[in-house]
Amino acid sequence: MSIRIGIMGYGNLGRGVECAVKQNPDMELVAVFTRRDPSTVSVLTESAKVCNVSELADWKDKIDVMILCGGSATDLPKQTPELAAMFNVVDSFDTHARIPEHFDNVDAAAKASGKIGIISVGWDPGMFSLNRMYANAILPNGKDYTFWGKGVSQGHSDAIRRVEGVKDGKQYTIPVEAALESVRAGENPELTTRQKHIRECFVVLEEGADAAKVEETIKNMPNYFADYDTIVNFISEEELKANHSGIPHGGFVIRSGKTGWNEENTHIIEYSLKLDSNPEFTSSVIVAYARAAYRMANEGQTGCKTVFDIAPAYLSVASGAELRAHLL
Amino acid sequence: MSIRIGIMGYGNLGRGVECAVKQNPDMELVAVFTRRDPSTVSVLTESAKVCNVSELADWKDKIDVMILCGGSATDLPKQTPELAAMFNVVDSFDTHARIPEHFDNVDAAAKASGKIGIISVGWDPGMFSLNRMYANAILPNGKDYTFWGKGVSQGHSDAIRRVEGVKDGKQYTIPVEAALESVRAGENPELTTRQKHIRECFVVLEEGADAAKVEETIKNMPNYFADYDTIVNFISEEELKANHSGIPHGGFVIRSGKTGWNEENTHIIEYSLKLDSNPEFTSSVIVAYARAAYRMANEGQTGCKTVFDIAPAYLSVASGAELRAHLL
Repeated sequence: MSIRIGIMGYGNLGRGVECAVKQNPDMELVAVFTRRDPSTVSVLTESAKVCNVSELADWKDKIDVMILCGGSATDLPKQTPELAAMFNVVDSFDTHARIPEHFDNVDAAAKASGKIGIISVGWDPGMFSLNRMYANAILPNGKDYTFWGKGVSQGHSDAIRRVEGVKDGKQYTIPVEAALESVRAGENPELTTRQKHIRECFVVLEEGADAAKVEETIKNMPNYFADYDTIVNFISEEELKANHSGIPHGGFVIRSGKTGWNEENTHIIEYSLKLDSNPEFTSSVIVAYARAAYRMANEGQTGCKTVFDIAPAYLSVASGAELRAHLL
Repeated sequence: MSIRIGIMGYGNLGRGVECAVKQNPDMELVAVFTRRDPSTVSVLTESAKVCNVSELADWKDKIDVMILCGGSATDLPKQTPELAAMFNVVDSFDTHARIPEHFDNVDAAAKASGKIGIISVGWDPGMFSLNRMYANAILPNGKDYTFWGKGVSQGHSDAIRRVEGVKDGKQYTIPVEAALESVRAGENPELTTRQKHIRECFVVLEEGADAAKVEETIKNMPNYFADYDTIVNFISEEELKANHSGIPHGGFVIRSGKTGWNEENTHIIEYSLKLDSNPEFTSSVIVAYARAAYRMANEGQTGCKTVFDIAPAYLSVASGAELRAHLL
């Protein structure tokens, strides 16, 4: 029997989950839940139902794992514990500072209901966290570096679009090549914010807007741009649509560490991602962890888990014997 | 209380384990076991005893995890199951084709004794296997590539030294940059053996040896060199000692995969290692898994495990709450 998947929230991430489920032959998307009128939402999977969130309880025994595709600011802190009372759940909660609190809330709900809740799944938090953790355990005497990009930052793109005179815009976060090279060379540099990432903006001006003033405003925006070397390019609306409508992202997790009786040897562990679509990759990770949630729940495990708590084999459709024979 | 570690076999790997234990404050090296006369073996850890293998049984209750540092050809297939009857064990068995059989033997022994046996720990098998597995689970529609190097191949260096006229030699395996770039570009190339790796040899000739003949013999050696582009450099014995006495290694695991309803997006996951000392890095991985063996045994788990079966958090000295707060 297939693992029956539900999707809560049908934005970019929800559509990514739908695509990822299609690639996994042991899974089936059975329903998509939305706060909108279901008749206004059409999904790609013909066999899946579109339901209003008010119908969630009716699906309690018809869905094995519910994947939450809402935002971390307001949706997930409320939804994940609520839905963990009815379903095994997986979310991509990514407000790093609030993870301990979110974990506790989901843990209490999932333990009470006898379900599994896996939180903060994706690439950061997610695969990047895993790689930081493995590398720290292997090389206790070392230093971690995380670089993001080249990729679109939604928050920074939104900030640009709020500037007076800006019609539309996209912002790319770009790691500084010289910093990456220094880290890879084992030099353990101390890097400032400015030395790690460049911010490149592509801006469409409103008619009659003052380009110099817009550029000045963007470059001096506190928190978002002031601490960075920022490049502002003005382009036409057509150019923005043609060349900057994707949502690529990626990044690098590097740990440099020493071993040997006198710490005479240096080792570099590097994990990197180059992603055409940030939400589709994130949802591909989530779907693999949905398989883990299903299996762990079938074993009678309950409560909140993160990527740190889940043995890798739970993610794979292959059996232990197959994994040992072909991938070990 | 510290995790009490024993080392079986004191070569490069055993010494690496000793150094790694020193970096982990929750561990203590209590004894090193050797087939030699213990009085002829001196270790770096003052508090550790050196014992003959005949004394192993006396240590049954004084060692929490025994780390096996013998070779995969003849030592480990016999030793790991034997010692799993007395101890929790970790080995770095790396004969990929014989892993299933080794797993079964260690599993039977460890289940009978109520111990944990973790096999095939290191970087390949080990961290490379983990990365292949995670990447396969995340991107089911894709292609894997593993490149090794730049690094010293012990087997190929030995092969060079068996050639008539060769006094000493070292062989480096080097990934072909163009192949790496094609894979990273998502081109999914089909690569022959020759297209993936170059073999570079540094050879010291016996006095009066025929250089042209030695080069010819090396380049045409079946299995080892005939299928590769091989570079042979003749150098002096002093130069070999000065510049080629390290045992660096490393490599790349790359998976390129497609997502999207019509597979329109490409993603590249890359994991790479650049290691000054192959045995010291391998043993650093092993020591982290020794912590996992200790904890899993304390929970009452038994039998044979691989890196696929072990939740990442077991490797870290930090608690679950600390990991969630700082590394997730």
